[in-house]
Amino acid sequence: GLAMPAIAQSTPPIKWRLTSSFPKSLDTIFGAAELFAKNIAEATDNNFQIQVFAAGELVPGLQAADAVTNRTVEMAHSAAYYYVGKDPTFALGTAAPFLLNSRMQNAWRYYGGGIDLMNEFYAKYNFIGLPGGNTGSQMGGWFRKEIKTVDDLKGLKMRIAGFAGQVLAKLGGVPQQLAGGDIYPALEKGTIDAAEWVGPYDDEKLGFVKVAPYYYYPGWWEGGAMLEFFINKDAYAELPKPYQAAVQSAAAMANVHMQAKYDAVNPAAIKRLAAGGAQLKPFPSEVMEACFKASNEIYAEVNAKNPAFKKIYDSITAFRGDQYLWFQISEYTYDTFMMVQQRKRAI
Amino acid sequence: GLAMPAIAQSTPPIKWRLTSSFPKSLDTIFGAAELFAKNIAEATDNNFQIQVFAAGELVPGLQAADAVTNRTVEMAHSAAYYYVGKDPTFALGTAAPFLLNSRMQNAWRYYGGGIDLMNEFYAKYNFIGLPGGNTGSQMGGWFRKEIKTVDDLKGLKMRIAGFAGQVLAKLGGVPQQLAGGDIYPALEKGTIDAAEWVGPYDDEKLGFVKVAPYYYYPGWWEGGAMLEFFINKDAYAELPKPYQAAVQSAAAMANVHMQAKYDAVNPAAIKRLAAGGAQLKPFPSEVMEACFKASNEIYAEVNAKNPAFKKIYDSITAFRGDQYLWFQISEYTYDTFMMVQQRKRAI
Repeated sequence: GLAMPAIAQSTPPIKWRLTSSFPKSLDTIFGAAELFAKNIAEATDNNFQIQVFAAGELVPGLQAADAVTNRTVEMAHSAAYYYVGKDPTFALGTAAPFLLNSRMQNAWRYYGGGIDLMNEFYAKYNFIGLPGGNTGSQMGGWFRKEIKTVDDLKGLKMRIAGFAGQVLAKLGGVPQQLAGGDIYPALEKGTIDAAEWVGPYDDEKLGFVKVAPYYYYPGWWEGGAMLEFFINKDAYAELPKPYQAAVQSAAAMANVHMQAKYDAVNPAAIKRLAAGGAQLKPFPSEVMEACFKASNEIYAEVNAKNPAFKKIYDSITAFRGDQYLWFQISEYTYDTFMMVQQRKRAI
Repeated sequence: GLAMPAIAQSTPPIKWRLTSSFPKSLDTIFGAAELFAKNIAEATDNNFQIQVFAAGELVPGLQAADAVTNRTVEMAHSAAYYYVGKDPTFALGTAAPFLLNSRMQNAWRYYGGGIDLMNEFYAKYNFIGLPGGNTGSQMGGWFRKEIKTVDDLKGLKMRIAGFAGQVLAKLGGVPQQLAGGDIYPALEKGTIDAAEWVGPYDDEKLGFVKVAPYYYYPGWWEGGAMLEFFINKDAYAELPKPYQAAVQSAAAMANVHMQAKYDAVNPAAIKRLAAGGAQLKPFPSEVMEACFKASNEIYAEVNAKNPAFKKIYDSITAFRGDQYLWFQISEYTYDTFMMVQQRKRAI
C-alpha cells in the first residue's frame, strides 16, 4: 500500500535484535523477553519487531551487555551481576547479599530513584536498564553434606558467583564458577560440594536432588534477583516516541509476569523435589549471621574505593531499612498467620 | 495531513472515557489509572486517548462498574468488591478474608487461571477485568479502645464493609458503611468505635490518629487488595488489535507501579503516624483465629448457594495452600532474617 510521510514518521518499520543471557530451557526468564517482544509487535501492528535470540545464538550469554554497548544488538535481557568483572556496581542492578526482596526492588526502582541511579551508572556502558523480571528470593542451593556450623563452610567447594562467592571465601569456602550444564557432573563426582542455581522450578530440571540432596534456604545473596532489559542509548534515543512508550510498558509487563510465573510454578516444583528426596534445610542462624557480617565487611571495602557503588548502595540500604520496618507490620503478620494455618492444614 | 486507509484502519483516532471509583486525593490508586492512560496515548501517538475521570465527575464511585456494563463509559478503574450487593462473587476480584497476598494475587491472575475465571463471571455484566494495581496487605484499622479478646468485638461499631463486616457481625460486632469523608467525624463523636481504610499513606491524610489512636494489623480481610480495569466487552472487541495490546501492557504497568508506589510511600507514613501518637498493635491471636473460623463459616454458606462464587473460591484456595507452603520457605526466612536485623538496627 501507499504510506504517508506524516504517519510513517511516528510508526516506521523498525527491526531490532534482543540477545538473552539465558537459554530457552529457562522458560520463565526467557519467556519474559518473548512476552516483551510479542506485546511490542502487537501494539505497533508489527511495525516495531524485536527478534529474541537465546544465549549463544548471536552472542554468548555473559557477553550480552557488551553486545548492547557496541550496538551489535540493540538490546539484551540479562542480569547485571554477570558483569561484576567490569565493575562491582553491576551487582546492584540484580541482587547482592542481604539487600531487597522483589517487591522492595520494584518500589526502589520505580519510586525510590533506582532506575535513574542505575542508568547514571550504565551510561558509561552506553545503555539504559529497565526492570524486566524477578525470580523472587532464590534458594540457597544444593549441598552434598549438611551445614551445621560456620566451620562446615571451611574448604567447602561451592558453585557460587560474585559477591556471595567472596562472602563464602571470607568464611573459608572455595567459590567456583561453573556454567549450568557443568554443575551436575561436578556435584556427582564430588569435585564440588555444593551449588546454587535459582529455585525449585529451574533447579528441578538439572536433577541436583539425586547427587546433593540437602536443599538449603534462603539464598541470602539473592533476596529478589531482578532481570533487566539493557537498551543501547543511541538506539533508544532514535526510536519514535510511541515505540519508546511501548518499550516502557512492555518491560513493566514482562517484569510483573516473570515474577508471577515463578510464583505460580515454584510450589508444585518444591513438592515434587521433596517427594523425590530433597531435604529442605534452613541455614543455621549462626551461618546466616556470619554471612551477614562478612557481607557488610565486603560492602565496606568496596564502598571505600568505588564511589559509583557507594552512591547506589547508600540509596538501596537507606530504602531497605524503612522497607523492613514497614513490611514486618501488616504484610509479615498476615503471611505468618496464613503460614501457621498452612502448617496446620487449615488452608 | 493526509491519511491512508490501510494505515488508518490499524491506528484510528479513538477517544474513551475511564471513570475511576476513587478521588484524586488517593493519588496512588488514581495515579495508576492516569499512568495507564498516559502510556496508551504515548504508545499510539495520541491516536487512542482515554480521558480519566475521578469518582463523581461523571459517575458516582460505587457505580463505576454499572457505567461500564451500560457503556456510559468504555471503562473504569475500580475495586470489584464494591459490587458485592449484586453478587458476593465480586469480592473475589479484589480481596476477601484470609485469601492471597499481592504477589500471590498476580500469580493466580496471570498464571493460575484467575483472569479467565474472573472474566467468565464478569461476562454477565458485559465487561472484562484486568489487574490494575494492588495496595498490598492493608492495615486492620483505627480503634478508640484496645482489642484484647474476642469479647471486645461484641457491640463494636466499626466502619468495615463486605465480607469482613459479615465476619465482624458473626462475632457480635456492628459493621457500618460510611464514605471516606464521614469516618473522621463519626470516630470523633464516638458514633463508631473503629474504622478501617487502607494503609498508612492513605490513612494519614484522614487524620484518624487524633481520634482513634490504636492502629491494628494485619487487615486480615485484605491481604492483597487488587484493583482492576473494567472494560466494556463490546468496546474492547471493537478496538483495533494494536490498541488491545497497548491496553494489556499498560494495565500490567499500572498494576506493578501502583504496588511499587504504595510500598515506597508507606514506610515514611507509618513512621510519621507512630511519631504522631499511633499505637501499633497486632490483633491478638485469639481474635485472628476467631475471625478465620467465622470467615470459613461464611465462605461455606456462600459456596453452598452460589456456584459462580464456589468455582472461583475453589481455584483461589487450592492455589493459596500451595503458595503458603512455598512462600514460608525461602521468601519468609529471608524476610524474617532481615526483619531481625532491622529490629537490632543492624540494617
